[in-house]
Amino acid sequence: MANVLGWLVSRGNNTEAFVVSSEETFDVIIVGAGCLGVATAYYLQKNSPDKKILLVERTLAAGQANTAMSAAAVRNMFASSTNQLLTDTSIKYFEYVQEELGYDLFFEKTGYLWLLGEEQFNHESVKVWMERMKKSGISHKVYNKEELKAMIPNLNVDFAGDEEAELMNLHEVSYGLFGADCGVLDPTRLVEYYFEEFTKISHVKPRFGVNVEKLLLEADPKLDLPGEPYAWQKKKVNGVVTDKGTIRADVVVLATGTWTNALLDPIGIDSLTKGKKRQLFVIHAEDKEDLQALLDVKGFNELGSIPFTILPSAGVYFRPQLQERGFWIGCGDKVGRAYKYIQNDEDMVPESSYYENSMYPVLSKYFPAFLGARPVNSWAGGYNYSPDRIPFVYLECGVLVVNGASGSGIMKADAMGRIADALYRGEAEAELYGGKKIPSNTLSIKDRDVEVESV
Amino acid sequence: MANVLGWLVSRGNNTEAFVVSSEETFDVIIVGAGCLGVATAYYLQKNSPDKKILLVERTLAAGQANTAMSAAAVRNMFASSTNQLLTDTSIKYFEYVQEELGYDLFFEKTGYLWLLGEEQFNHESVKVWMERMKKSGISHKVYNKEELKAMIPNLNVDFAGDEEAELMNLHEVSYGLFGADCGVLDPTRLVEYYFEEFTKISHVKPRFGVNVEKLLLEADPKLDLPGEPYAWQKKKVNGVVTDKGTIRADVVVLATGTWTNALLDPIGIDSLTKGKKRQLFVIHAEDKEDLQALLDVKGFNELGSIPFTILPSAGVYFRPQLQERGFWIGCGDKVGRAYKYIQNDEDMVPESSYYENSMYPVLSKYFPAFLGARPVNSWAGGYNYSPDRIPFVYLECGVLVVNGASGSGIMKADAMGRIADALYRGEAEAELYGGKKIPSNTLSIKDRDVEVESV
Repeated sequence: MANVLGWLVSRGNNTEAFVVSSEETFDVIIVGAGCLGVATAYYLQKNSPDKKILLVERTLAAGQANTAMSAAAVRNMFASSTNQLLTDTSIKYFEYVQEELGYDLFFEKTGYLWLLGEEQFNHESVKVWMERMKKSGISHKVYNKEELKAMIPNLNVDFAGDEEAELMNLHEVSYGLFGADCGVLDPTRLVEYYFEEFTKISHVKPRFGVNVEKLLLEADPKLDLPGEPYAWQKKKVNGVVTDKGTIRADVVVLATGTWTNALLDPIGIDSLTKGKKRQLFVIHAEDKEDLQALLDVKGFNELGSIPFTILPSAGVYFRPQLQERGFWIGCGDKVGRAYKYIQNDEDMVPESSYYENSMYPVLSKYFPAFLGARPVNSWAGGYNYSPDRIPFVYLECGVLVVNGASGSGIMKADAMGRIADALYRGEAEAELYGGKKIPSNTLSIKDRDVEVESV
Repeated sequence: MANVLGWLVSRGNNTEAFVVSSEETFDVIIVGAGCLGVATAYYLQKNSPDKKILLVERTLAAGQANTAMSAAAVRNMFASSTNQLLTDTSIKYFEYVQEELGYDLFFEKTGYLWLLGEEQFNHESVKVWMERMKKSGISHKVYNKEELKAMIPNLNVDFAGDEEAELMNLHEVSYGLFGADCGVLDPTRLVEYYFEEFTKISHVKPRFGVNVEKLLLEADPKLDLPGEPYAWQKKKVNGVVTDKGTIRADVVVLATGTWTNALLDPIGIDSLTKGKKRQLFVIHAEDKEDLQALLDVKGFNELGSIPFTILPSAGVYFRPQLQERGFWIGCGDKVGRAYKYIQNDEDMVPESSYYENSMYPVLSKYFPAFLGARPVNSWAGGYNYSPDRIPFVYLECGVLVVNGASGSGIMKADAMGRIADALYRGEAEAELYGGKKIPSNTLSIKDRDVEVESV
């Protein structure tokens, strides 16, 4: 047969042996110490105690990027049974950590309350949502308008005759859909829990301030040809190139959220995720009686507090913050605000005009207690959306991707970490907290088997 | 009720009436005069003869960007019944244009030939592919190794003992899967056909050299508030901002392929598509007897030519080019070459090293006739991939998106143009050439109803 590679080989070089010896090598490199990164690190190390697992993070501490910017609410009330399973088991694990292990996550079962108009409540998607929750045994309860009015002081439930409300497309409040097993927690505490547990059993000190610039995709096997890998070679990611040098590993975990495209696209893996800027604004109840009364609404939970509450319009929601006696105001806007291919610094800067123009008018229409309220603090971060709003966990060419949590990464972190670990160990199923099992490839791109999330 | 908008309104201005009067207005603006843009323009105008439809294009002529860079092969041999329908009806329309209307598209039924190894041929995905083709009545035929060897001079069907071939992961050739109703055409001729037909019936002269910089997303209704649209407002795209000024329209069609993300992401619509660079290299048969013999292989088609041929390894393929007595060599590489968020100039530049390293070794192993062959010409362009390799056609917020054809836009252009037109006219179904119908929302993101494409 004709020799067609000879001239390629002749152009190669053989410095590889030297290069390898100058680089560190681990079994696993985990990129990103947000909630998904630390949860994955913990389960990987726990179930592969001898492996050398290096956690690297661009910022100077764990959980200080988008995880810290989260509203950090947790709910098991999803429409897809996959999301239900991921969140329900994760939340139960968080309860276990706090109640049984005594590690305070500031997890508080405030509950989740969706306020819905008549038409919204009767929409097919809400029916499917409620049916699937019933089937999965997810706690939920419906309040009618009169009950809500009796429980929540000064709640505006209809806007008849209010021309502004009509211009603002505000739905009336006809029902409240409440989930008692939902709540809020402190995202930094959660990250610290996993991080501490990981470092207790890890053989390698995590490294901060290390920016991963690209994945080291190499021919497998390497032929030391110039410019390889070529189209006809098998390929594998054998490490990462960072601003502090190249580090090698058998498997690279990407828990890089809204920065993932910068690493995967160059090697030809489409993450199918995009970022979106999300902002939170803090309102203190302080000496405002109406806001105090709203914060201390009774009847929904044992805390005697208003639940995490989603308004019927514009995606506006608020989260009670009981330690600081206030509210975090957020908004899950849709068309009209940009998707981001890769999150940039601008996406970390909150815009006061966003509160003033998009949130405040809606918030104060439903809850006049907020009239005149001005934020005392604010921050911004990015959601990492997948097309079906279900996360991705898959292992391909040596890269274990854990992303696409679509704004609910904290509440899915435990389950996603366990699934990532099962994939790493080649297990067909992952066992989630409480013993429920899920096929390890459920959240993959290639063998995806999920219902599209609608809530 | 409390007035919460008053202070917003007070900050507004009322220059809008003036601005509108200085801008042109059309019924439809079509952005992009590639094959999908011109086909859509034609069907829109044909079925809405009174509408003012403006076609704008960044380059200086129709079909001169990625369409012109295409291998311009057409096949109805897909695994998904959706792609089968889109291509089969489009190809039949091209035949009609050439045979009945007498407009020469240089459409030649060379056929398509997949060379496959034993394991590849017996793979579940190939079985599904063949079953679905049978069900849809797509012409296909299987050749065995001996038949192929008898028909194609010097074809290497196995590499036993060839160490290079083993290093190169080359599959043997055990079968050929052939489709007689496939072929090649001239993409520029096809674009010219639709463009000429469109301009015959259009009321507006198409504009070239116009770069659309962003979509004009506005509040609906506009309240003239500063910074609107806000989260609580309905929104609609009412035109485009170009380097030659703002142009308004009821509907904006985006037939912008690998540049779509630059327009949709800023308004918060995730196109779910990404680009990938593809390159073609031209080899002339000239006075090389072996290449002449390969080009003139008999038995596959009435032309007495080798079909469009896909090799079993590395995604390498070639297309016979009968007018210039040569071959175009291409490669559908996978992991290892970058996905592109937005196509840039670099993606239009072919790399000779890509031919030398990734294509030539594979090509010349199977077809030694190519040994020593060097390209006389080359070019590059971008495929616009969707996640399931099925195109997108949907109308959302005033934007009619026609993209994601995943490398087979030319062969789907007629069907996609008809579906786009049906959506524009609010028809529940689109009638494709030959009378077959397809629900207009089949290719949408929200109501997508397709089988994932695997071929």
